[in-house]
Amino acid sequence: MKLVKFCMIILLSSVMLMSTDVLPSWNDGKVKKDIITYITATSTKNSPNFIPLEDRIVVFDNDGTLWSEQPVYFQFFFAIDKVKSLASEHTGWKTAEPFKSVLNNDMKGILKSGKEGLLKLINASHAGMDVETFENEVRAWIKNAKHPTKHHLYTDLIFQPMMELITYLKANDFKVYIVSGGGLDFMRAFIPEVYGIPKEHIIGSSGKAHYVDGKIIKDPEIYFIDDKETKPLGIYYHIGKRPVAAFGNSDGDLEMMLYTQANQKHKTFQLYIHHTDEKREWAYDRKSHMGKLDKGLDYAKKHNWTIVDMKKDWKVVYPFEMEQ
Amino acid sequence: MKLVKFCMIILLSSVMLMSTDVLPSWNDGKVKKDIITYITATSTKNSPNFIPLEDRIVVFDNDGTLWSEQPVYFQFFFAIDKVKSLASEHTGWKTAEPFKSVLNNDMKGILKSGKEGLLKLINASHAGMDVETFENEVRAWIKNAKHPTKHHLYTDLIFQPMMELITYLKANDFKVYIVSGGGLDFMRAFIPEVYGIPKEHIIGSSGKAHYVDGKIIKDPEIYFIDDKETKPLGIYYHIGKRPVAAFGNSDGDLEMMLYTQANQKHKTFQLYIHHTDEKREWAYDRKSHMGKLDKGLDYAKKHNWTIVDMKKDWKVVYPFEMEQ
Repeated sequence: MKLVKFCMIILLSSVMLMSTDVLPSWNDGKVKKDIITYITATSTKNSPNFIPLEDRIVVFDNDGTLWSEQPVYFQFFFAIDKVKSLASEHTGWKTAEPFKSVLNNDMKGILKSGKEGLLKLINASHAGMDVETFENEVRAWIKNAKHPTKHHLYTDLIFQPMMELITYLKANDFKVYIVSGGGLDFMRAFIPEVYGIPKEHIIGSSGKAHYVDGKIIKDPEIYFIDDKETKPLGIYYHIGKRPVAAFGNSDGDLEMMLYTQANQKHKTFQLYIHHTDEKREWAYDRKSHMGKLDKGLDYAKKHNWTIVDMKKDWKVVYPFEMEQ
Repeated sequence: MKLVKFCMIILLSSVMLMSTDVLPSWNDGKVKKDIITYITATSTKNSPNFIPLEDRIVVFDNDGTLWSEQPVYFQFFFAIDKVKSLASEHTGWKTAEPFKSVLNNDMKGILKSGKEGLLKLINASHAGMDVETFENEVRAWIKNAKHPTKHHLYTDLIFQPMMELITYLKANDFKVYIVSGGGLDFMRAFIPEVYGIPKEHIIGSSGKAHYVDGKIIKDPEIYFIDDKETKPLGIYYHIGKRPVAAFGNSDGDLEMMLYTQANQKHKTFQLYIHHTDEKREWAYDRKSHMGKLDKGLDYAKKHNWTIVDMKKDWKVVYPFEMEQ
């Protein structure tokens, strides 16, 4: 009897959800159904998979999961602009990587330096600056800088379906965290306003820093790189609870997903975005410099994780497509 | 006219608050009035000092601020028990501090080792353990271990007036964080249940760790000591916003308070607890090994921060006094 009642609630909620369409930019199909089924089952009282409020922790990668990441992580463009503007004060940069590649406009060299190279560029070019000034600098940059081939603001290149998913999760009292290899201060400068996720829910890579006279000053050295097996570590230091759902797009997110899957207390959910849309966005996976998805794709297929086929599952990719 | 209206709201709210007495264990007087005035002024709509929800971040030290810390931080007792139980497997401990002091029951030597010594004991004696097992171990210990002179459970030695303050702040939508020199995993094991503050709102000292096979494993080395000028740093890494109010009891909290005071956006509040009650709790300040309050006390007096005289301002110290 209890089960019948529960199933009726699930069915009713599904119908209600479908009728209002909480995920309007997602095409109907298995992926959309997977998402709605999971959220309904874990947030509906008396459901056998009900998760109490305090444990509704979900984690999202950022680059390639919530906004695009091609031809390089967007933060690289910020770093490149900054490094070029400061080059005359740092003669050593002419010969040292990854600065040399930046100054020679050698995109391949920049690509090769990866997340660590990106952090090096950011830290070295901002050492001595207080973090509030840094944030303002990012904010000023991101308000105007445009993507080299899409010719849109970077903050326009966010994924509309994922923004709907975040709204849907928040409406069901899930605490949404970002767990990204991107720079902590860089993300803090725009994510709260653009995604509606507060600063204290952002976990990222960071540089060393020190406190003096009421201010936090950035040091040149790297402190924490939030990628692969350090993503679960970042979650441990910052949150202290295992997530119940994880969303990513690359091998860099695999350990975070496995850590989530190993949650013994609650039903979990893992979703990979597969970049399959060479027309509206980009198509890449196993061989990409940015957002390589190889081991993760095999694992996801084998273990029946949800895989978004961007071309097939998303009605629109970017918000501006809806105005067209 | 606007000001008159605002003052009426403030007065009315004060009367209403007084009539329900949100802080029943606090004696009436300047300190209680300071607290209520600040919270009312910053959480009342249309107040000139209104703080929007997302910025209502408040930070509390733990040892000596939310529970007692004499004769040594309570975590030391946990570490001592553990080190003694493992001594036969670590012959090197006989000659190396702070282990030597522990094994010789030399309390002075233990005291001298301070927060860093405590972390060393904890990390060395738990290296290789996964954090979930560690938490369970703390939980089992704290359920039974009793204070050597008070003969109460450690979790009974929390400050009732401060618990009421936390409840009052939360009722006014302040996000309450712990920022403590205590061990992160140690605090996570009991603070959510005992104080009603979730794990993700706890910032503390931590050891290195690594991820493997779905688990976070503790390493022997220290990663982050959360004390003095690293308290603002911990807040920066974890929250990314300046607090609006800070509560502490020692010189170790001074920089966190100065960092809070330097908040340019909002009216701030700083409160020091002065341990003046040698009968119900302990009386100590400028010369104490634990919770030394010297520079901070001078600064607080000079800058008109709120100073709690425990003996005078608190009706009861511990919750169990109310049952007597």
